[in-house]
Amino acid sequence: MISIYSYGQVPAEKIFARSDDGADVSVAVRDIVANVQKDGDAALRRYALQFDKAQVEQLEVSKEELDAAVASLEPALVELLQEAAARIRAFHRHQVREGFVVSEEEGVVLGQKVIPLDRVGLYVPGGTAAYPSSVLMNCIPAKIAGCREIVMVSPPSRGGDIAPVILAAARIAGVDRVFRTGGAQAVAALAYGTETIPKVDKIVGPGNAYVAEAKRQVFGKVAIDMIAGPSEILVVADGASNPRHLAADLLSQAEHDKMASAVLVTDSAELARVVQAEIERQLPQLPRAAIARASIDNNGKIIVTDDLAKAIEIANEIAPEHLELCVDDPFALLSQVRNAGSVFLGRSCPEALGDYFAGPNHTLPTSGTARFMSPLSVDDFVKRTQFTYYTKEALEKVSGSIARFARQEGLEAHARSALSRSEEE
Amino acid sequence: MISIYSYGQVPAEKIFARSDDGADVSVAVRDIVANVQKDGDAALRRYALQFDKAQVEQLEVSKEELDAAVASLEPALVELLQEAAARIRAFHRHQVREGFVVSEEEGVVLGQKVIPLDRVGLYVPGGTAAYPSSVLMNCIPAKIAGCREIVMVSPPSRGGDIAPVILAAARIAGVDRVFRTGGAQAVAALAYGTETIPKVDKIVGPGNAYVAEAKRQVFGKVAIDMIAGPSEILVVADGASNPRHLAADLLSQAEHDKMASAVLVTDSAELARVVQAEIERQLPQLPRAAIARASIDNNGKIIVTDDLAKAIEIANEIAPEHLELCVDDPFALLSQVRNAGSVFLGRSCPEALGDYFAGPNHTLPTSGTARFMSPLSVDDFVKRTQFTYYTKEALEKVSGSIARFARQEGLEAHARSALSRSEEE
Repeated sequence: MISIYSYGQVPAEKIFARSDDGADVSVAVRDIVANVQKDGDAALRRYALQFDKAQVEQLEVSKEELDAAVASLEPALVELLQEAAARIRAFHRHQVREGFVVSEEEGVVLGQKVIPLDRVGLYVPGGTAAYPSSVLMNCIPAKIAGCREIVMVSPPSRGGDIAPVILAAARIAGVDRVFRTGGAQAVAALAYGTETIPKVDKIVGPGNAYVAEAKRQVFGKVAIDMIAGPSEILVVADGASNPRHLAADLLSQAEHDKMASAVLVTDSAELARVVQAEIERQLPQLPRAAIARASIDNNGKIIVTDDLAKAIEIANEIAPEHLELCVDDPFALLSQVRNAGSVFLGRSCPEALGDYFAGPNHTLPTSGTARFMSPLSVDDFVKRTQFTYYTKEALEKVSGSIARFARQEGLEAHARSALSRSEEE
Repeated sequence: MISIYSYGQVPAEKIFARSDDGADVSVAVRDIVANVQKDGDAALRRYALQFDKAQVEQLEVSKEELDAAVASLEPALVELLQEAAARIRAFHRHQVREGFVVSEEEGVVLGQKVIPLDRVGLYVPGGTAAYPSSVLMNCIPAKIAGCREIVMVSPPSRGGDIAPVILAAARIAGVDRVFRTGGAQAVAALAYGTETIPKVDKIVGPGNAYVAEAKRQVFGKVAIDMIAGPSEILVVADGASNPRHLAADLLSQAEHDKMASAVLVTDSAELARVVQAEIERQLPQLPRAAIARASIDNNGKIIVTDDLAKAIEIANEIAPEHLELCVDDPFALLSQVRNAGSVFLGRSCPEALGDYFAGPNHTLPTSGTARFMSPLSVDDFVKRTQFTYYTKEALEKVSGSIARFARQEGLEAHARSALSRSEEE
């Protein structure tokens, strides 16, 4: 049963469960990364046999196979994927930003260019965690950013294949090339390249402990998106909320993972009790009841506060990945939210809307990192370059100042480089 | 003497020197971080005595001391700092971005908020690497972003103090609080907080191997800017360039650090020879000749290509931190540049301009990371939050689709949370 607390009873840092990192896989991963650097494709085939029990002849999935995957799905499902993709595209297009150019006196021009990353790698987990929505959410922002090539990797099943719905999502989202390889070895292949797999500039997408550790190890050589912790939701609700809806929302978080945290904060002690009972009523009916049960009993919490201002205080302190504001005027509360990944506003906005369909991204900062990190966006797939143009006249006006500054820092060659232009030619 | 090569003779990955990471300080740093977490201020005072040979009573520098530092400088130097700050501010203001709000059918509202980080920590090295320009370059973007508090740490000298020019730069840039502590212990204090030092959301600024390793270790708990490698410049110049200027520019890079890399790419074999000689003429006159000599002899290179298109190819392949385009029409070449931190255009634009005065930031991606990273900017001091508002009518139109998508992913509780709103009330 979900536990009920009063405000202040649970310290902020204990409100959400934190992963205990589990077994240290860093040595095993270091070994895998080194072997892929050394043996390339042969290492990928060896690991597919060892970890995925799959005999992989062709690492690359052909264009024909991608098209066949789309054709193999029910047309209604294809339409659903296409509609979700269209909504995600529409939202992310607003994130596109231009550079700028500033003209100053004496012909000086300063500016900033925004340039897409050249090649991006997308990791897609296999098995039950193979979510077509993740393919859409990770690929579409890169596509909108204008990346030249988007490469996807995903572990093969025992039969050696990737699930058709994943391949179809890749085709619809605009992935350019798909490879049958997963785990730490796939991350290593994306970072260093093999005979078949081209090396990329950034690796995005969720994965298990091996994938996360491999991303950590190749970080610096390539960029990575983030290392995600267990998923979290904070639901803020007033007494007028429908307890059935709140219970359903909390359970949708809880079914993800035993480590997931579903927390309700309300100013109504009455609502707290009814939601508690409602969760017990709904939970046993779920196919993933065992997972939801562990999450709710171990990590689930209902916190009763005097007022909703306190609830927002809690949100700002713990920086939840997902935040629902189930109140009549959610925009008034939103203006007070400083730390949260994605916010769902009003009584008709379950978090599940954001997982697939509304358009905003579902790859979000967890474990309190929304204090300083952002949802995945077009920004993740571009970089900026500054530029500076000075004329001779403009340089002459400031070269004395530059020289003075440089000498203050003990850097005489810097001073001379500025002054050399104004000396006799 | 700087070496001359022809195009293709040096593999791209060998064009710039790479740091060999040096001694592994991770165990020592882990110990320091743990002790600061345990003993707080007392640990900071202990390490000040041990590493800085400084007896530190007051960890915080008072407002009066900051004002006194400004008053102690020559007025001309204060004006110089103020002018540099004004130029940096003017450039970085163009980086400020707004969120967006989109209205859709059925009353749906989607959007993105841009929110400043709450508190930011700025590390400033001591000794000869204490650069007032770094204080300006790191603080001003955070100030423009609207961060509530900017906290600076810097190691005390033996007398227990921080150099007046550094304190003055902090005052001028708008740093809110300054503390006398440096090294890995200062990074730990910023990440975890002590009795005196508040914990921050992000740590920026350069430092030695201990500081870099501490930033690596606290990354995740807080955000960090980047781990900088040795500084680099690629100068692209045609045969009409003035060899004195080019030699001076290359030497201004070389004087930073023995590991710094200064590389010229030109389509003129004649220019290559003259610049080679000119470096030999200018180098011995420099106060930091020993450092410049090591950098030039070990890492310096002149590469002669058939044409400048090849030079831009090299730039895009190695993604230099600094790139000078010393040609008549540098904007034509700029349009082909895909990977570079900061680009200096034309014959009157030495890189030293960018270190202090032009306005663009001097904290730049090194070691090839300009392929996927950007100069420090206002973006580094904000995060984004998404929001989604659905009405009952809007949700009803899509809840069937959401449920279908969720069931496809095996997440029944997600489906039910979307459907619960449309069922009988």
